[in-house]
Amino acid sequence: MYKCPSGAGVLIPAMQAHLTHQHCWNSLPSPSVREAASMYSTAVAIFLVILVAALQSSEPPESLFPYHIPLDPDGILELSWNISYVQKIIHFQLQVQGLRAGVLFGMSDRGEMENADLIMLWTDGNRSYFADAWSDQKGQIHLDAQQDYQLLQVQRTSDGLSLLFKRPFVTCDPKDYLIEDDTVHLVYGILEEPFQSLEAINTSGLHTGLQRVQLLKSEVPTPAMPADVQTMEIRAPDVLIPDNETTYWCYVTELPPGFSRHHIIMYEAVITEGNEALVHHMEVFQCAAKFKSFPHFNGPCDSKMKPDRLNYCRHVLAAWALGAKAFYYPEEAGVAFGGLGSSRYLRLEVHYHNPRNIQGRRDSSGIRLYYTATLRQFNAGIMELGLVYTPVMAIPPQETAFVLTGYCTDKCTMLALPPSGIRIFASQLHTHLTGRKVITVLARDGQERKVVNRDNHYSPHFQEIRMLKEVVSVFPGDVLITSCTYNTEDKKLATVGGFGILEEMCVNYVHYYPQTELELCKSAVNDGYLQKYFHQVNSFNNEEVCTCPQASVTEQFTSVPWNSYNRDMLKALYRFAPISMHCNKTSAVRFQGEWNLQPLPEITSTLKDPTPNCPTGRAVSRTNPTTVSISWGRG
Amino acid sequence: MYKCPSGAGVLIPAMQAHLTHQHCWNSLPSPSVREAASMYSTAVAIFLVILVAALQSSEPPESLFPYHIPLDPDGILELSWNISYVQKIIHFQLQVQGLRAGVLFGMSDRGEMENADLIMLWTDGNRSYFADAWSDQKGQIHLDAQQDYQLLQVQRTSDGLSLLFKRPFVTCDPKDYLIEDDTVHLVYGILEEPFQSLEAINTSGLHTGLQRVQLLKSEVPTPAMPADVQTMEIRAPDVLIPDNETTYWCYVTELPPGFSRHHIIMYEAVITEGNEALVHHMEVFQCAAKFKSFPHFNGPCDSKMKPDRLNYCRHVLAAWALGAKAFYYPEEAGVAFGGLGSSRYLRLEVHYHNPRNIQGRRDSSGIRLYYTATLRQFNAGIMELGLVYTPVMAIPPQETAFVLTGYCTDKCTMLALPPSGIRIFASQLHTHLTGRKVITVLARDGQERKVVNRDNHYSPHFQEIRMLKEVVSVFPGDVLITSCTYNTEDKKLATVGGFGILEEMCVNYVHYYPQTELELCKSAVNDGYLQKYFHQVNSFNNEEVCTCPQASVTEQFTSVPWNSYNRDMLKALYRFAPISMHCNKTSAVRFQGEWNLQPLPEITSTLKDPTPNCPTGRAVSRTNPTTVSISWGRG
Repeated sequence: MYKCPSGAGVLIPAMQAHLTHQHCWNSLPSPSVREAASMYSTAVAIFLVILVAALQSSEPPESLFPYHIPLDPDGILELSWNISYVQKIIHFQLQVQGLRAGVLFGMSDRGEMENADLIMLWTDGNRSYFADAWSDQKGQIHLDAQQDYQLLQVQRTSDGLSLLFKRPFVTCDPKDYLIEDDTVHLVYGILEEPFQSLEAINTSGLHTGLQRVQLLKSEVPTPAMPADVQTMEIRAPDVLIPDNETTYWCYVTELPPGFSRHHIIMYEAVITEGNEALVHHMEVFQCAAKFKSFPHFNGPCDSKMKPDRLNYCRHVLAAWALGAKAFYYPEEAGVAFGGLGSSRYLRLEVHYHNPRNIQGRRDSSGIRLYYTATLRQFNAGIMELGLVYTPVMAIPPQETAFVLTGYCTDKCTMLALPPSGIRIFASQLHTHLTGRKVITVLARDGQERKVVNRDNHYSPHFQEIRMLKEVVSVFPGDVLITSCTYNTEDKKLATVGGFGILEEMCVNYVHYYPQTELELCKSAVNDGYLQKYFHQVNSFNNEEVCTCPQASVTEQFTSVPWNSYNRDMLKALYRFAPISMHCNKTSAVRFQGEWNLQPLPEITSTLKDPTPNCPTGRAVSRTNPTTVSISWGRG
Repeated sequence: MYKCPSGAGVLIPAMQAHLTHQHCWNSLPSPSVREAASMYSTAVAIFLVILVAALQSSEPPESLFPYHIPLDPDGILELSWNISYVQKIIHFQLQVQGLRAGVLFGMSDRGEMENADLIMLWTDGNRSYFADAWSDQKGQIHLDAQQDYQLLQVQRTSDGLSLLFKRPFVTCDPKDYLIEDDTVHLVYGILEEPFQSLEAINTSGLHTGLQRVQLLKSEVPTPAMPADVQTMEIRAPDVLIPDNETTYWCYVTELPPGFSRHHIIMYEAVITEGNEALVHHMEVFQCAAKFKSFPHFNGPCDSKMKPDRLNYCRHVLAAWALGAKAFYYPEEAGVAFGGLGSSRYLRLEVHYHNPRNIQGRRDSSGIRLYYTATLRQFNAGIMELGLVYTPVMAIPPQETAFVLTGYCTDKCTMLALPPSGIRIFASQLHTHLTGRKVITVLARDGQERKVVNRDNHYSPHFQEIRMLKEVVSVFPGDVLITSCTYNTEDKKLATVGGFGILEEMCVNYVHYYPQTELELCKSAVNDGYLQKYFHQVNSFNNEEVCTCPQASVTEQFTSVPWNSYNRDMLKALYRFAPISMHCNKTSAVRFQGEWNLQPLPEITSTLKDPTPNCPTGRAVSRTNPTTVSISWGRG
C-alpha cells in the first residue's frame, strides 16, 4: 500500500467525490456489518482515512473564521467558525492546548453531556481515531450510524492540536443536533487517558464543560462608517475581578459636560487581554433624565453600598455577550444620546464569570461606542414587549414547560405606531432564572404571520442583542405576541412575575426605527379574573387560599395547593381571561384609552414549527471511525 | 425493441431484482429530473413497464386471496387481498366490471377523497398508465415521488379488468397511508373519460365512494373442529330489504325446547348471494333469562310495533361485519348457550346498507353457529370496559378531538379476577355517532404495559369483533384504561353519555376466558365533583347554569356557555376528579365494597405511539407512471 508522506497539514477537499487521488487510504479495523439496502436502494459505503501529522502550526487567516469563542474558563479549548448560508454548512476550527489522550466537542439541548451530538478524537494508545458520535441518556458514547461531521484537517500546533471539520446545519440524523439560529449549548470534554473503544467512554468520567453561543449569526452587510465617526470607551476602571463564580460589576461614568446630541451607530466590546473567558457579558445603561446627577459608584451591583438611585439607570444603550461581534445600526438609523433632555450619566455593568475562582486578575473591559454628530435620518428606539412585571402572572412549581404569554394588542399599535409602521432590526430576549424558551410572533388580521425572534434554547445566562436576519415591519393594527416557557422543577412554591431575581419576567426588547413614543407594549391577566380563579380554587378544593383584601397576590399564589386541577385551571385562565394592557409612552405614562379588561387577541391560524426538509433518499453510509495519525503527549 | 407477446396475464415476480429477463421494457414519457444524490449516496433509478393484455380471464385460486370485500354498493369494484406478515406486504387484487377510462383505489384517514393515498389506472385516449399517486386537500391528484404500490399484473377479464399490485404496510413516504391493524377507510373512484395527465384529475369530478375494512386481520391458526360439531343457522326469514339507506332488521327466534348446554366454538356469516354489498353487519343476541318468553317479532328494529321486551335481548352471542371471516374461539374455550338458567330466545339484528335505494331485493342472510355438546375446558365470557352510560360524562360541542376515559381499577380486578388471571382474545370497540378513536391500555404498577386493542380510525359505522393478534393476560391488581376520542364539530349542544343514539358511549367489549362473575368494569366522574364544576362555571362566568336539585345533569350541560375556559375546566375535571366505579357481576349487582369517590389510577409512565422504523437509507426512485397496454371500452 502506498504510504502517506508525513509533513505539513493537508487541507482535505470538501467533496468526497474528489478525494480519490489526493488521499491515503489506510487499512481499517474490522469492517462493520453492512446494512441491508432496501429494495429500491443501493447502499454506498464510503469512508475516509486521514493520515496527517504536522509539527508546524499554520494558522488560517482571520478572515477564514470570523467567529471565535473560548470554550473553557482556562482557555485550553478555543473554537473558531464560519458559516456558509448558501451551502448551509458550518466549518469549525477547534484548537486544543496541551492535548493528552483526546477531546470531545459537540452540542446538546441545554448544555448537558447526556444526549449530546459529538465529535470524538481519541487514541487507544496505539492508533488514533476521529468520529461523529453521540452520548446516550447515561452519558455513554456511541458511534453515530450517520457520519455528518466531516474531518478536514488534523494538525499538531506548537502547543497542542488543531482540528478542522465541517457539518451541515441540518443532517436529518435523529442523533444530531439541529443547528438553528438561536442559542447553541456547546459542550466539550478532555480525555486524560487512552480508551480501547468509543463505547468504553462515558462523559461522566471526563473533565467537561459547556459554553453558550449563537452559531448562526446574522450576516447583514455592515454599513460603512461616516468620516466624522468618533469613539468613546465605557470601560471598567482596572477592576480586581472577585474570586466568586458570579460578579455583576457596576460602574457609573458620565458624558462630558455640554455633550451635544449624537447618534451611536456602532459599538463593540473591548476585552482586556487574557480575560476573554472571564468577561461574560456587559451592558451600558443611560440613567434617567429626571435626576440631575448620579453618584459615581464603582463596585459589585449587589453591594449594600450601591446607591438606590442607580436603579434609575436602566435605559439600554449597548449590550454585548460572549461571542457577539460588533453591533452595527442600520445605515438610516442611530441611537440618540447626549444633548438636552437626556441624562449625562451612564452605568456600565460587567458580568464576570469566574467558576475556577481565579484570584488577582485585573480587568478594564468595556464597550467602545462609535458615534457621529451628523445625525442619521431616524432615531432608533427600544420597545419592551411581553409581560408586565406583576405577580398576577405566575408559574406553578414543579412545571417542566409552563408557558406565559404577553400581548401587544392591535388597539395599542393602532394608537402608537405611524401609518408607515416601524422596522424591527434587532431583539434582546429576557427572562429571569427559570426561563427556557422565548418567542415573539407578529399577527395580522387574526393570523400569525412571522416570527420576530425565537430562542428555543434560551438561557437566562446568555442574553445578547441579536440582529434579525430579516427586518420585521410592524404596522398599526398588528399584534405582537411574546411567549416564554419556564422550568420550575426545582421550586416548591409558585414563581410570580416581578423585578426580583427569584421572580420572573418575559420580555423582548426590540430595537427599531423610527423611534416612536411607545416604549412599553405589554400585558398581564386582569386581576379581577385572577381573584375569580382563587375563589374557584377555594370552592373546588375546600382549601383556604386567602382571598381577603389584605392578602397579596404573591401570598395567594403561595397558598394554592398545586394539584393537577388547579394547574390546569390556571393555564385555562391565562388562555381565556381578559388582560390589562400597558400601552405606555414611558413606564409611567400611558397612551389615552381604556386598557383594562381588554379581550385577548383572537388568533385563528398559527405558524407551524419549521420542519427541516429531510430527503427520503439518503444512502446508508458505512460507519467506522476515521483513523488519524497523531503523536500524543505534550507538544 | 423486443415486443411483448400478447396473451394470458403474466404474474410479475415480486422481486424487482429478478425482473430483467421476464419483462418488456417500453419507451417512456420524458424522463423526470433525477434528484441529486447526497454526498454519501447513490441514486438508483428503477422503473417498471408492463405490457400485458389478455382477453381471457384466469381467476387466481381462492387460497391466494383469503379476504374479499365489495367496494361499492353496485358491486362494480371488488377487492381481494392477502397479507404477508413476514414481508410486511399486502397483495391486492382489484376487479373492475365494465371499465370505462380508468379507476382509482386507495386509503385515507376517514374515507375522504382528499389527502388520500391512491393508485391510479387511467388512459389519455391513446396510452394507458398505472401510478402510485396522492390527492391533495382539494382533491387534486399528483404523482407520488416515491412509487410504493407495485403493479404486478393487469388483465382483461370477461366483464372488465383485474389489477394485481402490492404494497408494504409501511412505506416511510409521508404521502402514503400507514397501514396498521385497525380500521382502514378504502376509497375508490371511476373515471368515465380519458385524462391528458394525472394532474388533470380531481376526485371531486368522479364517481367515488368508500368502504371500511380491517386489512391486517389477525391470522391466528384456526383450531380444528371436533367430530361432534353441529351447526345452526340464525337467518332472516326472506326479508324484503327496505329501500332506505339504513335499516336495522330485528328477528326473534328460539332454540329448540329442551336444548341443553352447549359451547359455541365458531361462527360465520351466511350471506344471500347477490346481497354481499347490502348486508353491512349482523349480530345474534341472547335474551335475558328472567323472562320466560319473548314475542316473535320480525321487522325493523326502530318500528313502533317492536315489543319493548326485546330491549332485554342484549347479550352478544355472535357478531359479524363486512369483510370479517369466520370467528373461531380458542381451542380451550367456548361460549355457553342452552341449558338451565339461560334463555332459549335469540334476537338476530341485520344492518342493511342500501344507499342506492334498491327495491325488491329479498334476503335470508344470517349467522351460522358451530357448536358442540362436548363442553370445552373454559367458558368464554364478555366483559364491558369503559364508561358507565351516564350523562355526567359529556363532550362539549364544536370539539374536534375530545377524549373521555373510563377505568377498570386495580381494586375491582383484585376482587373479581382469579389469581391466575384471565386471557382476553378478542375485542369489540363501541361508541355512538361522534366516536373517532378508541383504545384500551393495560397498566400494572402504575405503568402502561400493553395496548389491548386500539383503533385510530374507528368508525361507529363499522363495529366488528376482532381477534387480538396476541392474547392479553390480565391479573388481579391490573388496571384497564379505555379512552374514546369524539368529534362534535357539527353539534350545537353538549353530547352527554347515555343509551340514546344521539348520546355517547365509550365501551370495549372484551372476549376472554375463563369466564368470571365480572361483567362490567367501568367508571364515570363523581357526580359531586361535577356539581362543583357547574358551580364554578356559574361563579366564573356569572352565568346561570341551573344547579338546583330539579335540574338534570343533561340540562346543566345544555346551559353551560362553551367558552375556552369552561371547556378547559371540564377537561381538567375529568383528568383530576375522583370516579365512581361500576364493578358489577351483572348490570345491577355490584361486587361488595365502596365504589364511590375512588381515586383515579395514577399512571407514572405511558406507552409511546409506535413510530414506524423508517430507514434513513432509501434511494430516490425515479418516478414516472408505468405504461400499460389495455384496450378500453366495455368488455
